[in-house]
Amino acid sequence: MSSMFGNKLKISIFGESHGAAIGVILDGLPSGIELDLNYINEQMLRRVPGNSNLSTTRNEKDLYNILSGYFNGKTTGTPLCAIIYNEDKKSKDYDILKHNMRPGHSDYPGFIKYLGFNDYRGGGHFSGRITAPLLFAGAIAMQILEKNKNIYIGSRIKNISKIQDEEISNININSIKNLKNMKFPVISEDKSIKMQSEILKAKEDGDSVGGIVETFIINTDAGLGQPFFDSVESKLSHMIFSIPSVKGIEFGEGFNITKMRGSESNDSYYVQNNNISTTSNNNGGIIGGITNGMPIIFRTAIKPTPSISISQNTVNISSMENTNLQISGRHDPCIVPRALPVIEGAAAIVILDLILEREGELCKMK
Amino acid sequence: MSSMFGNKLKISIFGESHGAAIGVILDGLPSGIELDLNYINEQMLRRVPGNSNLSTTRNEKDLYNILSGYFNGKTTGTPLCAIIYNEDKKSKDYDILKHNMRPGHSDYPGFIKYLGFNDYRGGGHFSGRITAPLLFAGAIAMQILEKNKNIYIGSRIKNISKIQDEEISNININSIKNLKNMKFPVISEDKSIKMQSEILKAKEDGDSVGGIVETFIINTDAGLGQPFFDSVESKLSHMIFSIPSVKGIEFGEGFNITKMRGSESNDSYYVQNNNISTTSNNNGGIIGGITNGMPIIFRTAIKPTPSISISQNTVNISSMENTNLQISGRHDPCIVPRALPVIEGAAAIVILDLILEREGELCKMK
Amino acid sequence: MSSMFGNKLKISIFGESHGAAIGVILDGLPSGIELDLNYINEQMLRRVPGNSNLSTTRNEKDLYNILSGYFNGKTTGTPLCAIIYNEDKKSKDYDILKHNMRPGHSDYPGFIKYLGFNDYRGGGHFSGRITAPLLFAGAIAMQILEKNKNIYIGSRIKNISKIQDEEISNININSIKNLKNMKFPVISEDKSIKMQSEILKAKEDGDSVGGIVETFIINTDAGLGQPFFDSVESKLSHMIFSIPSVKGIEFGEGFNITKMRGSESNDSYYVQNNNISTTSNNNGGIIGGITNGMPIIFRTAIKPTPSISISQNTVNISSMENTNLQISGRHDPCIVPRALPVIEGAAAIVILDLILEREGELCKMK
Amino acid sequence: MSSMFGNKLKISIFGESHGAAIGVILDGLPSGIELDLNYINEQMLRRVPGNSNLSTTRNEKDLYNILSGYFNGKTTGTPLCAIIYNEDKKSKDYDILKHNMRPGHSDYPGFIKYLGFNDYRGGGHFSGRITAPLLFAGAIAMQILEKNKNIYIGSRIKNISKIQDEEISNININSIKNLKNMKFPVISEDKSIKMQSEILKAKEDGDSVGGIVETFIINTDAGLGQPFFDSVESKLSHMIFSIPSVKGIEFGEGFNITKMRGSESNDSYYVQNNNISTTSNNNGGIIGGITNGMPIIFRTAIKPTPSISISQNTVNISSMENTNLQISGRHDPCIVPRALPVIEGAAAIVILDLILEREGELCKMK
Repeated sequence: MSSMFGNKLKISIFGESHGAAIGVILDGLPSGIELDLNYINEQMLRRVPGNSNLSTTRNEKDLYNILSGYFNGKTTGTPLCAIIYNEDKKSKDYDILKHNMRPGHSDYPGFIKYLGFNDYRGGGHFSGRITAPLLFAGAIAMQILEKNKNIYIGSRIKNISKIQDEEISNININSIKNLKNMKFPVISEDKSIKMQSEILKAKEDGDSVGGIVETFIINTDAGLGQPFFDSVESKLSHMIFSIPSVKGIEFGEGFNITKMRGSESNDSYYVQNNNISTTSNNNGGIIGGITNGMPIIFRTAIKPTPSISISQNTVNISSMENTNLQISGRHDPCIVPRALPVIEGAAAIVILDLILEREGELCKMK
Repeated sequence: MSSMFGNKLKISIFGESHGAAIGVILDGLPSGIELDLNYINEQMLRRVPGNSNLSTTRNEKDLYNILSGYFNGKTTGTPLCAIIYNEDKKSKDYDILKHNMRPGHSDYPGFIKYLGFNDYRGGGHFSGRITAPLLFAGAIAMQILEKNKNIYIGSRIKNISKIQDEEISNININSIKNLKNMKFPVISEDKSIKMQSEILKAKEDGDSVGGIVETFIINTDAGLGQPFFDSVESKLSHMIFSIPSVKGIEFGEGFNITKMRGSESNDSYYVQNNNISTTSNNNGGIIGGITNGMPIIFRTAIKPTPSISISQNTVNISSMENTNLQISGRHDPCIVPRALPVIEGAAAIVILDLILEREGELCKMK
Repeated sequence: MSSMFGNKLKISIFGESHGAAIGVILDGLPSGIELDLNYINEQMLRRVPGNSNLSTTRNEKDLYNILSGYFNGKTTGTPLCAIIYNEDKKSKDYDILKHNMRPGHSDYPGFIKYLGFNDYRGGGHFSGRITAPLLFAGAIAMQILEKNKNIYIGSRIKNISKIQDEEISNININSIKNLKNMKFPVISEDKSIKMQSEILKAKEDGDSVGGIVETFIINTDAGLGQPFFDSVESKLSHMIFSIPSVKGIEFGEGFNITKMRGSESNDSYYVQNNNISTTSNNNGGIIGGITNGMPIIFRTAIKPTPSISISQNTVNISSMENTNLQISGRHDPCIVPRALPVIEGAAAIVILDLILEREGELCKMK
Repeated sequence: MSSMFGNKLKISIFGESHGAAIGVILDGLPSGIELDLNYINEQMLRRVPGNSNLSTTRNEKDLYNILSGYFNGKTTGTPLCAIIYNEDKKSKDYDILKHNMRPGHSDYPGFIKYLGFNDYRGGGHFSGRITAPLLFAGAIAMQILEKNKNIYIGSRIKNISKIQDEEISNININSIKNLKNMKFPVISEDKSIKMQSEILKAKEDGDSVGGIVETFIINTDAGLGQPFFDSVESKLSHMIFSIPSVKGIEFGEGFNITKMRGSESNDSYYVQNNNISTTSNNNGGIIGGITNGMPIIFRTAIKPTPSISISQNTVNISSMENTNLQISGRHDPCIVPRALPVIEGAAAIVILDLILEREGELCKMK
């Protein structure tokens, strides 16, 4: 599917970091849905660089233009395309990178894949910047889920490097709203400060750090997902691994569940007020690939930003000689806080697609 | 896509644990490929239950019948369908499970999804048994990769419960072949014994344990994978999460990479004999979603088998009352050793699909 | 998509004329639908050869085995696979055809496509026999449409060679049922006799004739179909051209509409009892690619059976020399009557898929 | 797939006639292909209205902006997006059409499908204007076919209303180039004048006429196309029926082949200079759904433009009352000459997709 994703809600994404514009098509949105453009702006602002000393000083406003599929303030049901022009481009910064492959970046595999014809400036189509239109699409999906299905998606930073946030006791609509209002969503204030200080230390060293984002999706119905190959985990992981720098994903107790015994890891059912729940949620709301109505919980591992200003060994692919490279330019010492809203939006696209598959295009919307 | 997967090599899977037969269609195989049926048998035997005291005593021979797409010992290029009849069925064992939802199993979400009409016997279409035709397909993909592309895929058990195998120093064709010849592929003999004893202890307790499988894919070309949505990680994780009981996947250093700094996690390039490699492989052979020619390494978290004989709390979905349930029947105290060859086969399908996308149906084969 | 078709209802087909078995998977059927197996048998009998002197004397019973997705007389919602074993195979008949390419058959393009490795016996995967599992799938779709949506699909033979049936005045459920009960569905008895005599004359001459099938689909809701690329005409034509020997398709007045003026071809709307209809139906129930609620009408052009016993010029692809070929064996002098139920079934699959896309998997079924 | 089409070359289209912009994404183009922008302009000019008294006086320049996937004059291999701003919009012309459904137009089925939320101005997403980005994509595909594969696609107007062009004797690269240079591509000058006069007569009467376009594709290799469902006819017809106003398609002798006998319709093979051809081409270059290397020939039936200025009976969907409607505004008395280059471009997209499926993304390009 390459640059297209989804079954009933199809996303098609395009653009390069330093090209004319980047953008996205959403095909399969139900018609007649009033869009809250402020909501979209707010979500996109969470990703925009330059709004904190923790991120790059590049100034991308990410102003989007809706070109189609939107009429009289509502979705028409036809493909909705939005584009974002690339404005603050400093392409000269990247000239040295034409042949010197940045370690940890897609430069080398991209060069091989496209036989050297890809746009190498700023990572081109592999740039994290391409997550801006993804987040635009996600912000639309997310508001539809909230308004029409009472489904909420929120995340917190679980780790920055080795610093870990405290355990979360309970997750509900309010706690998700609180997380969404935080610039640096961490439960423990103490840990939040330590994490931010860790990022600034890396920045001072011309280095970078990574972290783990934990995401919660609440109020999905039981019964979403398709065996054999379209399990909810399959679809979410497919989408989440599209986001640059992601190296791992786990659901519920994830890798930790491998250390439990079955008698401990199995989530027991109980019925109360004619409603079935589980006492624990080690499976993270998904069993047999299908939602069981409990909160969907997953964690995403994000590697340290590959762009660092420390000198690195690499090769010049034109001369086929060893060389070293010092990357200048403006870069994020840690991409985790900016990746977080993208992960939420990406998850929202998947969940809305699953619902539309189940309920059809006549799906009840407010 | 639900029961269908792939772009150029498409897999379509069907069947229920206690139905007449299970099977698979492979569509998009190149024509003229001689199949080694012994090779397929060997791979399928690795998954078959009843061949060790570590697994269920069910006796499934998994004899497959190829119905189409195979003529004069070679693939025809048209859809190859194979079926496996279900023989050793003891459906009575499952009658009590019609309304009593087994914790950790797909019974409840499956009931909701299919409005109560799914075949509940033995997990039906959600059964681990459905991985037999998946492995059949994988064994075909794997032998094509080996014979025609010199690509080898092997795995070891990295953890059973809290017992962890030692670090692996180097991986090459020989070490992969060695792993494939081991019934219980663990590097350290000492750890192997401890892991097997851990499984037997769980079995004695009527309980179960999980573990982690580590998989290596060597000799893939650089340049496989498609941005934005069809990264190699996206496609592999999509496939691997289709396998029942999988709760996490990570590539290269995975979750551990989040604790490194960029200067440490970036894999430096160097050139030697006109060949580009990296000094480390923290990214597990995939950068920007595209292969870089280094070994692809990923780890899969497998939960403890949900079928345990210890009594569990659950609900009766017909009476909507709380109840408890003791599962009888024959079950695996640990599914990890049997899941391992399935993971390898599933990965082989993805890699062959990626190659066929890149090289087309005229792809050079021996 | 090759051997797979559909968005929500996905069909995957396999098999060769002289292989072990042919079959089909239907993925995406709603769960809990009671299947009338007699209905399926009746539909399949309409296609079976040997039941009239107008067709080949081969004796194919087309007995199907349902392997999965069907439990306690109802669909489970998981993939339903059915296979038909190939029994009355006389493969020796075809040995001479290994290198002598039959004119009008897929032998030559198939040889090139599959590099000579395809199963050449009886056309292999290109055989009209592969329409048996397609009709099986169609018979399931058709009965779901009839019972749950009151949608009926019927056809008549409009032409055999130059002999044309009379105009049809009105089409309703009764007239469709009447057509379905006729062995040789032609309105005018006189024309029916002439057509059958035309077929027998061709048979006597060792030659063959073609014809046109006209198909009616009544009671579909307005609003089915997806712009831009999934117009109802696009999906129906895609499917119908999969059927061997089809060379043309037209909707409503079709090619004839090109001779009208707009003032004549436009179907005027009127409202009666709060219901919108059109006075004429020149567009065949589809405007802008979307159904308008009027009967869907299309005509399918079917070429003369390419298998004739008259000697023909052709090439030997092994020696690359000109040669001539006299095809022996049992063949249909006219495939039109047997293609007719296949066209209906194929159309039913498309219409049900469109409905499931619109209404989702929770689509209301009886 | 709705607004997306293709397997290896994927097209995603968006926009409404009176929205901000319309556009297209091409995903899967090989990298490193130099694009001739003049060639694209020339092709798009053939479709542009207002360049002849036979078409509407609307002045659409169809200037496109390439936003991505194009770097240093060459394709990058990543998604290429182009947009065309809508400039000469006179939306007031369309206000009366909000509730009065134009006969022959998609207004009514579109209203039902989108529950009344579609952009009704100028047909919205159903507008013929959406064929401009389709032609843009087609012009890229066409030039790649010409330069890299020596494949040429050309068309002539076979009929306008009842006036029919003379038979074509031979088709080769030169005759295709000649057709492409003609503003009104008809073989017989006499018939050309009569056809144009027929269009002008309809225009004077405030009425419209339709016609038939005949398309030739030469120099494709044998072996393209995928059984069972992705026959070349299936893919071409799927695409061509996406173009507004198309009501029929036939390949080779098409509907006429139904009047032949098999001994006449079968195309005999012969070998000359080690090259296999057929003496006739009644199958239009496609047998068994696969190309045989002969010219692909198909005819497309295009209905009279539904927009006429003569008063028509229709309904007001808001009041649910019968009414009549006189459409003002600027409209084409015959859409055939403008549809012709779109058909060629659409066919080019399909052929290039089939080649990329066969040869892969490493497909040899100049």
